[in-house]
Amino acid sequence: MSVSAFEHPFLSGLVGDDETGKLFSAEAEIEAMLAFEAALAKAEAGAGVIPMDAAERILTVCGSFKPDMAGLHKGTGRDGIVVAEFVKQLRAAAGGEAAQYVHFGATSQDVIDTALVIRLKQVRGLFDQRLSALEKAFVAIDRNFGARTLMGHTRMQAAVPITVSDRIRAWCEPLVRHRRRLDAFSEHGFAVQFGGAAGTLDKLGAKAAGVRQSLAFELLLADAPQWQSQRDRLAEFAGILALISGSLGKFGQDVALLAEMGGEMELAGGGGSSAMAHKQNPVAAEVLVSLARFNAVQLSGMQQAMVHEQERSGAAWTLEWLILPPMVMATGASLRLAAELVDNIRSLGKG
Amino acid sequence: MSVSAFEHPFLSGLVGDDETGKLFSAEAEIEAMLAFEAALAKAEAGAGVIPMDAAERILTVCGSFKPDMAGLHKGTGRDGIVVAEFVKQLRAAAGGEAAQYVHFGATSQDVIDTALVIRLKQVRGLFDQRLSALEKAFVAIDRNFGARTLMGHTRMQAAVPITVSDRIRAWCEPLVRHRRRLDAFSEHGFAVQFGGAAGTLDKLGAKAAGVRQSLAFELLLADAPQWQSQRDRLAEFAGILALISGSLGKFGQDVALLAEMGGEMELAGGGGSSAMAHKQNPVAAEVLVSLARFNAVQLSGMQQAMVHEQERSGAAWTLEWLILPPMVMATGASLRLAAELVDNIRSLGKG
Amino acid sequence: MSVSAFEHPFLSGLVGDDETGKLFSAEAEIEAMLAFEAALAKAEAGAGVIPMDAAERILTVCGSFKPDMAGLHKGTGRDGIVVAEFVKQLRAAAGGEAAQYVHFGATSQDVIDTALVIRLKQVRGLFDQRLSALEKAFVAIDRNFGARTLMGHTRMQAAVPITVSDRIRAWCEPLVRHRRRLDAFSEHGFAVQFGGAAGTLDKLGAKAAGVRQSLAFELLLADAPQWQSQRDRLAEFAGILALISGSLGKFGQDVALLAEMGGEMELAGGGGSSAMAHKQNPVAAEVLVSLARFNAVQLSGMQQAMVHEQERSGAAWTLEWLILPPMVMATGASLRLAAELVDNIRSLGKG
Amino acid sequence: MSVSAFEHPFLSGLVGDDETGKLFSAEAEIEAMLAFEAALAKAEAGAGVIPMDAAERILTVCGSFKPDMAGLHKGTGRDGIVVAEFVKQLRAAAGGEAAQYVHFGATSQDVIDTALVIRLKQVRGLFDQRLSALEKAFVAIDRNFGARTLMGHTRMQAAVPITVSDRIRAWCEPLVRHRRRLDAFSEHGFAVQFGGAAGTLDKLGAKAAGVRQSLAFELLLADAPQWQSQRDRLAEFAGILALISGSLGKFGQDVALLAEMGGEMELAGGGGSSAMAHKQNPVAAEVLVSLARFNAVQLSGMQQAMVHEQERSGAAWTLEWLILPPMVMATGASLRLAAELVDNIRSLGKG
Repeated sequence: MSVSAFEHPFLSGLVGDDETGKLFSAEAEIEAMLAFEAALAKAEAGAGVIPMDAAERILTVCGSFKPDMAGLHKGTGRDGIVVAEFVKQLRAAAGGEAAQYVHFGATSQDVIDTALVIRLKQVRGLFDQRLSALEKAFVAIDRNFGARTLMGHTRMQAAVPITVSDRIRAWCEPLVRHRRRLDAFSEHGFAVQFGGAAGTLDKLGAKAAGVRQSLAFELLLADAPQWQSQRDRLAEFAGILALISGSLGKFGQDVALLAEMGGEMELAGGGGSSAMAHKQNPVAAEVLVSLARFNAVQLSGMQQAMVHEQERSGAAWTLEWLILPPMVMATGASLRLAAELVDNIRSLGKG
Repeated sequence: MSVSAFEHPFLSGLVGDDETGKLFSAEAEIEAMLAFEAALAKAEAGAGVIPMDAAERILTVCGSFKPDMAGLHKGTGRDGIVVAEFVKQLRAAAGGEAAQYVHFGATSQDVIDTALVIRLKQVRGLFDQRLSALEKAFVAIDRNFGARTLMGHTRMQAAVPITVSDRIRAWCEPLVRHRRRLDAFSEHGFAVQFGGAAGTLDKLGAKAAGVRQSLAFELLLADAPQWQSQRDRLAEFAGILALISGSLGKFGQDVALLAEMGGEMELAGGGGSSAMAHKQNPVAAEVLVSLARFNAVQLSGMQQAMVHEQERSGAAWTLEWLILPPMVMATGASLRLAAELVDNIRSLGKG
Repeated sequence: MSVSAFEHPFLSGLVGDDETGKLFSAEAEIEAMLAFEAALAKAEAGAGVIPMDAAERILTVCGSFKPDMAGLHKGTGRDGIVVAEFVKQLRAAAGGEAAQYVHFGATSQDVIDTALVIRLKQVRGLFDQRLSALEKAFVAIDRNFGARTLMGHTRMQAAVPITVSDRIRAWCEPLVRHRRRLDAFSEHGFAVQFGGAAGTLDKLGAKAAGVRQSLAFELLLADAPQWQSQRDRLAEFAGILALISGSLGKFGQDVALLAEMGGEMELAGGGGSSAMAHKQNPVAAEVLVSLARFNAVQLSGMQQAMVHEQERSGAAWTLEWLILPPMVMATGASLRLAAELVDNIRSLGKG
Repeated sequence: MSVSAFEHPFLSGLVGDDETGKLFSAEAEIEAMLAFEAALAKAEAGAGVIPMDAAERILTVCGSFKPDMAGLHKGTGRDGIVVAEFVKQLRAAAGGEAAQYVHFGATSQDVIDTALVIRLKQVRGLFDQRLSALEKAFVAIDRNFGARTLMGHTRMQAAVPITVSDRIRAWCEPLVRHRRRLDAFSEHGFAVQFGGAAGTLDKLGAKAAGVRQSLAFELLLADAPQWQSQRDRLAEFAGILALISGSLGKFGQDVALLAEMGGEMELAGGGGSSAMAHKQNPVAAEVLVSLARFNAVQLSGMQQAMVHEQERSGAAWTLEWLILPPMVMATGASLRLAAELVDNIRSLGKG
């Protein structure tokens, strides 16, 4: 099937992004889930909650476990969540005494949310690099063309001349702030989720906080009390994604207008037309606008999911699953296309 | 990759829908594009615009053509649209004299938009059947339990007793209206798009209207002047999708509340929990709420895409590609889950 | 206060619309509520549900009643709805025997929803006229300039020349469809809401359907079973509003681009700049885009409100109150500005 | 008129908020605009850009100036922005030599955006206090009832018992983070906007940066290069508003469910019903959900406005004017209602 343009056999040539997509593949998800279960076993064994032998067995199994995907598919349809079936399979693989200590004291949301945060942290790393590279690319074209003039336009009318540097600043400065936003978020935002059945870690008693701390440490995540019904961090992260693609959408819109107005920019790599051979369409520029508007729309869904009732809302949680991965992809594609677009600017402004 | 939950290896067990997904597979898209090119050749040959021989060759080729998908992927990335590469491949397959008559007088948007409409018409057929089946299922539980009483609730408070029939009416009546909306839409809404480079069919001269009429006839679509920058029909169709999933979201929310309150409903098939064996989660009911909210969010994007500048907006058009297929899928999944959910209602109301 | 730009002391000069605003004033709302209560009394007296004397008294009172607005403000804050206090005041005004028959058998939602529908029907009348006038204005500029040429643009690039008529068709044809959509909606969409406490009209017994029919007749609304938790008609109407402003946003975007590109349009009435005396900003064109995007955003909220749990959802209902009136205003302002803008087109295309 | 429920004669009793509304009144807006013009004159005189006498005169006039509102209304309709007319009136009031130095070197966007930021900074102060008070209120009910038990619910099903403290943590912890978000935003976010016609402060030459610094200092805002087409800070602030109302929506939804389920909470101050005297509707709880969903929807519009083309986009900017003030109000109302709601919790959990 090919419902998502991000993964579509041919549309992904336009809006896909392999690097980002890999972080949100089912394989990456399972890997992150196994990392959680392994780290949990290790932390619990360290705290004397489960036997060391069992933990060792669980770590070994998690290192090589390949789930039966058809079973996961069926289990998710039945339970609304993959975890019951996943844990069942993992327990069977662990076997013997160890089986009962797999996923001990944890609940579905602990695995799923933590596995999500592990990958969002990787996404942050990737996007930070891309933002940084993009800033450098802007600095480079500023070096080449910054002193030239562009006609400044306000309210769709020629206003007064500006320099190319002035325009590049409007494209680049927000990126610097976005990186700072990602930095600030990283301080506390990538937090382990660990709460047990209803958030109280009732099976771990007095050892709960210690196990959680070790678990966070093992996964290189921030330690924090369970946040299973507190979705503000995820919505905040989605907000940063939309800010990034929003700024790049402004860049795209400006380039598309420069392309349409003509005379102030040379752009390589425009797209061909099936009907008009003479055209050089500013495809990447347009798609940056599409992706900005896409993420603007999606963010509303992440915000709706904040109304997460009681200790766990299946309705709000499932909504996040539908919305957040495409937002990540749209942002990744946006960064990729912006880099290509800057690279294709052969000339900007008038000497 | 697994960005879209609708196509995800295991999440699709929950929110996927095979029948709907098939209508939006890349294969179905290519098939619809080939149907367009074949019908165009036939219509143009009938009008004496292209040679009959060429049309016959094109029809034959379209009947068995398998595109080089890697080429389409690359071409879409370059051109922002698959068509230039697709037509190039199709011309190569047609060969000889016929090659130049493939896609004659048409533009990218004619193929893509018409191929979309062909599939949306199939979607309408599928959803009409499902709505109808769902109505019957509601009638059936009404027959069994309609005379019983339920506590009516207003503003999250017990109000006065109502009958089960009263509640079922609130679930079922909108579905009847949705089918009427689909009927009304079908009268003119599934319209062929055929405009040529900038909407003027300039290469067909006086024969333009006749060719378009034959093309529509051949594809079983409504004939209408080109609408390439008029996206109201697509936004309207998306609106009907959101109305459908919205009503089913209300049904889901009600069932979830009945499940939580207890005592008035018996529900089979609830989902299991990884931490609490005693639970029977009303998974389908919750997911209906998620899908309703998802489509509510997405519709905003289809509306944004109405600001479709000039003769063709790459930005607005690409946005539709990102938004509409997931909306179709969400609606299909919603109808599938609602049918399952009604089927799982073992008892409703108090005798 | 001046939170809403539509009612803001000076911003309303830009985005306000007096005619539309009047239909959504508190005065109009109270008038419509009184029309409901009067028609209800009349219908109930006709069916022998309440004494004729009481009905006459209620009709008289409703004809001149001026509520204590401070009381309504306070009551709404307390009850979440104005009706309890409104009815209390109206009963006091009716006095004597008649008092108890005011609002007999009805519930808050009956008054509020019906009073809304009464005004939406007026809105439809107003917008139908405006759409019709706008179509005529497009026909007029087509008569003057239609045969001239414009450079057609696809994907922000000059494509091939088109006629001015071609472009005007893209602006005008959707309006014709929007009027048809309003017509089709009018057949059943403006339906009375009358259900009593939990939708069952339990106090009226066998006379319920007859009273409802008379009530609908009296108010010139469609008769329909209560729809208090079925919000699809309202969401559908909101969808038509967004389609209207969406199409006008495309018109605005095109005009703004024509203004920016220069050379193909003369536009009177552009806005002045505080810093650059030479500019003629295409203000109305830009604002049409703003209003299109505004309504596109809002529609999502009306769709969210379809998840209207049980017999009455305070949460979903209040959301409609926040969203729908601004959508109506944005559409009214959009139609007003589009008319001004067409009127200001002094020349279009090249001779 | 009464289009906005936040300012509606009686609906504002429910969703209004006087303190917040005052910060977004037209009076407050004009006051902030005058503060800008006064500070600008002072800064420019200090830098020797304009005569000291003129600055003194301008400061005096700004201290008492009352604009002709009808003129502003008309001017805004004509220019798309109030500033041209506002400055004209202010110059007339200044008179003589000083007139020409009013608004010297500045552009519309400098006044409007800076006047917005001045008020957003006040909003932050108000909301910070309210968040803080709300946290204290949660601490207080935690002190009273925290040790009691509540039935934990996951996926709309009873799960395992939790403590009242557990639940209160889910309500309160996000508020602490929201205050930190506001703190972090305050470090750089409330930045003066000063760029002149097209962002280059071309009339101030080498003194531009110094004047801007003094202007920022005078207005107690952060100094930053002009950001007229970089809307990320505003979208980020809107995001924090949506996070706040989102968390309070979760609180509201939980309270509404507690009210519906019964037995674990006593709530004072519920709303009355016009049809059912026995009901105590959890009105404030429901409205918190409405406001959360409202802001979730609106945020999408602020994000759309990030696609702010060229040096100033009338379309994107006007969209912000339509969206941001209602978001501020919804958040203010949300904080007010949450405080009332906590205050009305008479008992929570089971002893």
